[in-house]
Amino acid sequence: MEVKGKICLVLSLFVAVCLVSATVSLARSERDPVGVCKLKCEEIRGAKQDEKQECKQTCERYHQDKQRREREGGQGKERGHTGGGSGAGSGQYNIVFADIERELREMVGKCHQSCQGSKGEQENPECFRTCMEQYSPEQGKRRGGGGGDTRSRQMGRQSGREFGKGQQLNNPYVFEDHHFTARLESEQGSVRVLQKFTDRSELFQGIGKYRVAILEAEPQTFVIPNHWDADSLLFVAKGEGTISLINTDSRQNHNIKRGDVFRVPAGISAYLINRHANEKLVLAKILHSISVPGELQTFVGVGAGNPESSFFNAFSNEILQAAFDIDRESLETLFGQQKQEQGMFKKATEEQIRAMSGKEESRTWPFGESKGPYNIYKNKPSVQNDYGNLHEVDSNDYPDLRDINVAFSLFNITQGSMAGPFYNTKTTTVFVVADGVGQFEMACPHLSEQTGGVIDTVPSYEKVSSQLRRGTVVVIPAGHPIVMEASGEQNLEVIGFGLNSDQNEWFPLAGRDNVMSQWEDEAMELTFGVPANEVQKVIQKQNKKLFFKGPVRRGRAFA
Amino acid sequence: MEVKGKICLVLSLFVAVCLVSATVSLARSERDPVGVCKLKCEEIRGAKQDEKQECKQTCERYHQDKQRREREGGQGKERGHTGGGSGAGSGQYNIVFADIERELREMVGKCHQSCQGSKGEQENPECFRTCMEQYSPEQGKRRGGGGGDTRSRQMGRQSGREFGKGQQLNNPYVFEDHHFTARLESEQGSVRVLQKFTDRSELFQGIGKYRVAILEAEPQTFVIPNHWDADSLLFVAKGEGTISLINTDSRQNHNIKRGDVFRVPAGISAYLINRHANEKLVLAKILHSISVPGELQTFVGVGAGNPESSFFNAFSNEILQAAFDIDRESLETLFGQQKQEQGMFKKATEEQIRAMSGKEESRTWPFGESKGPYNIYKNKPSVQNDYGNLHEVDSNDYPDLRDINVAFSLFNITQGSMAGPFYNTKTTTVFVVADGVGQFEMACPHLSEQTGGVIDTVPSYEKVSSQLRRGTVVVIPAGHPIVMEASGEQNLEVIGFGLNSDQNEWFPLAGRDNVMSQWEDEAMELTFGVPANEVQKVIQKQNKKLFFKGPVRRGRAFA
Amino acid sequence: MEVKGKICLVLSLFVAVCLVSATVSLARSERDPVGVCKLKCEEIRGAKQDEKQECKQTCERYHQDKQRREREGGQGKERGHTGGGSGAGSGQYNIVFADIERELREMVGKCHQSCQGSKGEQENPECFRTCMEQYSPEQGKRRGGGGGDTRSRQMGRQSGREFGKGQQLNNPYVFEDHHFTARLESEQGSVRVLQKFTDRSELFQGIGKYRVAILEAEPQTFVIPNHWDADSLLFVAKGEGTISLINTDSRQNHNIKRGDVFRVPAGISAYLINRHANEKLVLAKILHSISVPGELQTFVGVGAGNPESSFFNAFSNEILQAAFDIDRESLETLFGQQKQEQGMFKKATEEQIRAMSGKEESRTWPFGESKGPYNIYKNKPSVQNDYGNLHEVDSNDYPDLRDINVAFSLFNITQGSMAGPFYNTKTTTVFVVADGVGQFEMACPHLSEQTGGVIDTVPSYEKVSSQLRRGTVVVIPAGHPIVMEASGEQNLEVIGFGLNSDQNEWFPLAGRDNVMSQWEDEAMELTFGVPANEVQKVIQKQNKKLFFKGPVRRGRAFA
Repeated sequence: MEVKGKICLVLSLFVAVCLVSATVSLARSERDPVGVCKLKCEEIRGAKQDEKQECKQTCERYHQDKQRREREGGQGKERGHTGGGSGAGSGQYNIVFADIERELREMVGKCHQSCQGSKGEQENPECFRTCMEQYSPEQGKRRGGGGGDTRSRQMGRQSGREFGKGQQLNNPYVFEDHHFTARLESEQGSVRVLQKFTDRSELFQGIGKYRVAILEAEPQTFVIPNHWDADSLLFVAKGEGTISLINTDSRQNHNIKRGDVFRVPAGISAYLINRHANEKLVLAKILHSISVPGELQTFVGVGAGNPESSFFNAFSNEILQAAFDIDRESLETLFGQQKQEQGMFKKATEEQIRAMSGKEESRTWPFGESKGPYNIYKNKPSVQNDYGNLHEVDSNDYPDLRDINVAFSLFNITQGSMAGPFYNTKTTTVFVVADGVGQFEMACPHLSEQTGGVIDTVPSYEKVSSQLRRGTVVVIPAGHPIVMEASGEQNLEVIGFGLNSDQNEWFPLAGRDNVMSQWEDEAMELTFGVPANEVQKVIQKQNKKLFFKGPVRRGRAFA
Repeated sequence: MEVKGKICLVLSLFVAVCLVSATVSLARSERDPVGVCKLKCEEIRGAKQDEKQECKQTCERYHQDKQRREREGGQGKERGHTGGGSGAGSGQYNIVFADIERELREMVGKCHQSCQGSKGEQENPECFRTCMEQYSPEQGKRRGGGGGDTRSRQMGRQSGREFGKGQQLNNPYVFEDHHFTARLESEQGSVRVLQKFTDRSELFQGIGKYRVAILEAEPQTFVIPNHWDADSLLFVAKGEGTISLINTDSRQNHNIKRGDVFRVPAGISAYLINRHANEKLVLAKILHSISVPGELQTFVGVGAGNPESSFFNAFSNEILQAAFDIDRESLETLFGQQKQEQGMFKKATEEQIRAMSGKEESRTWPFGESKGPYNIYKNKPSVQNDYGNLHEVDSNDYPDLRDINVAFSLFNITQGSMAGPFYNTKTTTVFVVADGVGQFEMACPHLSEQTGGVIDTVPSYEKVSSQLRRGTVVVIPAGHPIVMEASGEQNLEVIGFGLNSDQNEWFPLAGRDNVMSQWEDEAMELTFGVPANEVQKVIQKQNKKLFFKGPVRRGRAFA
Repeated sequence: MEVKGKICLVLSLFVAVCLVSATVSLARSERDPVGVCKLKCEEIRGAKQDEKQECKQTCERYHQDKQRREREGGQGKERGHTGGGSGAGSGQYNIVFADIERELREMVGKCHQSCQGSKGEQENPECFRTCMEQYSPEQGKRRGGGGGDTRSRQMGRQSGREFGKGQQLNNPYVFEDHHFTARLESEQGSVRVLQKFTDRSELFQGIGKYRVAILEAEPQTFVIPNHWDADSLLFVAKGEGTISLINTDSRQNHNIKRGDVFRVPAGISAYLINRHANEKLVLAKILHSISVPGELQTFVGVGAGNPESSFFNAFSNEILQAAFDIDRESLETLFGQQKQEQGMFKKATEEQIRAMSGKEESRTWPFGESKGPYNIYKNKPSVQNDYGNLHEVDSNDYPDLRDINVAFSLFNITQGSMAGPFYNTKTTTVFVVADGVGQFEMACPHLSEQTGGVIDTVPSYEKVSSQLRRGTVVVIPAGHPIVMEASGEQNLEVIGFGLNSDQNEWFPLAGRDNVMSQWEDEAMELTFGVPANEVQKVIQKQNKKLFFKGPVRRGRAFA
């Protein structure tokens, strides 16, 4: 108990790492969790020297336990961790370290969340300690041996269930709140950016240039002009606003509302207002970095709150005076302003809002082919029945999607219903839950395991699953079958960004138009090993397309 | 001798690694050969503790010897190993480890092959030990000092010759049987996939997304429906069959025969039959991964032999019941079948074959621009004479090649003849030997070496060469001159997949239309340092194009 | 002083590494500076054993001091080093090592340059030692604490100023002479290639396939035929010549002169003459590698000076005899020539020059869409005023630029004037100073720093700056604002290669057409926090476009 208290103490430090630190720290900790752990021991305020020493030993011990467990779990388990990625270009140990660290951070994140929410475990240390004990390596091992659902082979799945959340540890496909970092933030709004996909797993190398971000602006808020070194595709998840794109000799004002898809090209300076008096404006964005893969830089010339936040102020005074042909005093008036509290999100007056909205301007448009936003509700859903509907937009509908190679979809799954199983042929889809609660299941191939020295030369699959709630991000690689299910109480609305969407198609695996329905009778016989008419009977029973009545569940499933 | 016996024992364990283990193990062993070696010592059945201990010491010793040899060989030698790749992003030690490990594996592979063939060195331990001794570091060093052909500077070249195989150690451009891994396999057929190019050498970063695979199906065999997360370009090297591609509302059946090129887009579900009563169906494939670069996943819904091999079975029972709208029993009938021996390759009856073949269907084709397979023999050879012929297909002939950016060629070199020297301007070409025996030589630039502290500021080249036989895969980077030569007994047939083929051209370096024939006289004089007419006399003598009468060789050259 | 003398000795060894060693050595030293340092201690000629020992200890000590300084500098500083790149795929320590090593090399390079120029510090050891002391970690720390310009936060900036060069240490954006390596060189000319961008910093991953090279040929010089595994875009910075591209059945001769842009496709064999009797021919090149990203190979068939420098000589004699259908003697006549002094650059006679120039041939052109070189002065400047002018060429003007995805520009900034601030939306621009002296300033975003545990959630920027002189190469990433300024004595001419130029635009940030001029009044008020008319007054004052009168400077600024 003494040691576990210490573990708790040590681990609690990871909360800080996880929730407050910048990307660089995370990158380091993923590579040397023990080192970071020890460093954190040193930093405990008020701790005596021998307490720090014990803390460090706990770091070592925890790590060794963890590694032993990994080893005992055997190769198959390790493979399970890394999924299909054999980790070219990254040492074996890095993979193991990264796994441990990822697991640690997720454990801590969960306990943190369930014990309090916003300011760390200090508020309820007992809860946190108990929670962490549930997840400690020893416990994990014991629970892992408990069996139950023999089909599931992923470590920690049962424990996940016991924890009442239904999410797996070591599941790199799911991202929660704590995987986002606030890049810009003030009382009037925020831009939160999801961690780099490739920082999470090497499985995401194919989408390493893309990032996910969520912008939220309070009612009657102005977001000051800025440009990014990334192409941005935004979806208006909530609210209404006006976005203005600046060219050297013109400006484009566009009113945007819920359901609009809009592209802001890299480097184009833009400002934004939430016109609404009471409602938040929420944008879900895919950013496609154009400079360093997966890295994003924001450029703000003026107004972000303090002098260092203006790129103008990085230049010498002489240079600025010469450029603007003015004296130092005038320069100071504009660029030398003192700290402002509001940062990049400014409270605007009703008059200012009124003046800037309404006057939509659509002169010649130099950026890309489109003339403005595209509303996803403009066309009929591509699939619709009692159990849900699907809206889709691709580059044929909205040519601006072509450059960034992203397609867009919106799933609305009726409460108590489900979508799929289906898969996409080419895109890796990033799903962002816009509203509701539910869960998903994905079939994930993993490398074949040695069984007594003999290699299986058939593929095998395991289930990856998680709870879905507003803000959850799930990444589904190309080819992987998936089911999404809404809870019984609420519709589930999920935004889908299909990355690398060129020539993508999706195929249903059950219900109307499922791929099996086109097999020849002989193919059915040979594949199933039973007469074709028996197969037909089963696969023709379900006559809905894509959206179905959900399974009967005991209520606690979506607790 | 005692120690060498141990070395032999130790090394023999690498045979197992090389031939039976999965990719992950290989990846690990490439990074820590000593660690793997010791691990294997632990696993020797029936060995006593002190024997294991001695085994481990041998691992260390072998490694140290090896490293010392590398060091003594000096920097030039190390550069030779890595060719033109200076190894950005990979530590120096990783390169050295990888080299040692690669050499070890190739040594073992060769000895294994020459001493038995299929089941390991146990069958003839004396042969294997003697063979390995020939290659041990000490031996290698002695032989390496022997000189002989002063033009060749690549380590181990002489020893290669002595071994009677004509292949160089440390030659990352050549792949043999043991570089393939069976991904799907049963008595009725197999899909063998070549290791990732980038696992072999950093030189192959430019083609890291591509993989090579060989599918073989026995006569009258059905390959069950499946899809891959990779675009696939297949060439029918042997036999005839029918391939069926599945869409949601249609199916395309295509008869394929020797010489056909055909593309199966990523994610498209397909099944295949070998229609022939006696002949094998052999497909050579280039796969272009679309998700994780160089990683391939296969998706099989049902029929692969056991429940874990169905992606349907990764989903919860409740989910599947809801999706198919059926009860648990019906579900079990289809998806819960017990182990089948046949895996993904099923023996079909004559009636089943007959029912599924012949009815070629070509309705509207939603996948890409083409209407079906393209036969390489359809057009006349682009080059043809007594010494060989060359067929070529590019995206102008077959638009489906455009997306995957691959061009296709087939060299048929008459026995006793040769093709080249020539080079490709843009493609890196993957040659797969379809039939016959021969050899190739390539001129390979290497980094200039310090000679007494002075850097050469002219380029220099070394020969890379190897035997060719059915199944050998050779990678020739863009710009590198190459010659392929058929043995005196048999024609040599080589399939060429030109990767990154956009705007590629090939240029002959001798014979008709060679690039020198277009030089101005003054350019000849200045370059050769002799009068232009003397040059002309030599370069105009050979009047054949690309294919020439081969050199006079002593018979044992292709032993 | 004793220790510092040793440091000096040790560091002087890095000069050799920096200036004479091949890429592989550099790559290694970037990963283990201490190891390399110690290795170099071993190699000191004439040193006694205990001197070597002390040398090695100094290596350790220097490294530890350096690391401690890094640590004490805190996370913010480390971030500063790596700029926006969080270093995915590379360990923290590698980054730190690389930083130390880079800094070391730059320190040594500078001292080397200022103390002598060409053959090392032996010539003036006292100067070198004093110079190095200025830069030693202890000194750097002391100076760094000195403050002064509170706006600049980059370590060593003040010290840079004190050193009288105006360049920052740890500035990965600037490349000087010592970052080039001679690849081909003789008395008649040279090709110098800039280090790989990604060897310098992970920030340059997005342009990792591109390399910069400078070709210089003496008057009346012939460059023998060769091909590269890279697409080459060349700009004639000086002189005039004739370039000949070889096809199998044709040849294209093109006269080129100052201002010409020309593309040589990968793999196309070409030769070149400097036709002029007295003037050098200077080409600035962007090379786009097509095989291994960032790696370049040159292929020369014959004439480069010694037998190893001919790719023909890498083939067996039997093969060559068969290919050319000639006997061994004739073969020797052409390919077996003895060492020539001239290498790839040959002194040509007036008659040879005359025979090869003038006869421009423009038959059907099989390589790309263009018909020959494009002269940048052909069209009017896109911007021109008293303070400078800008010429631009993109793929609309010259279709050959499309494949290589590069745009081209030429800035001519009048003495005492400046260009910018401006930024490019999409390209990362590689500027090569063709003539003159000046300086640049860039606003560079850096990761927000922790201040007392609170994270800034607004961006912040720092100045990156350096002297510019002929041959300086500067890389400006997309989106980054930049100013270039000419000295008062001489016009500044800068060549700009815009990499990844598709759909790029540039925006002025001051003067006519600056992006702020299109903001609505309310946007100005909300952003600046002052009435719009006050803002307008300032931003409308400067009415020139892009080029402005430079700032008033004390003379020593460009010393």
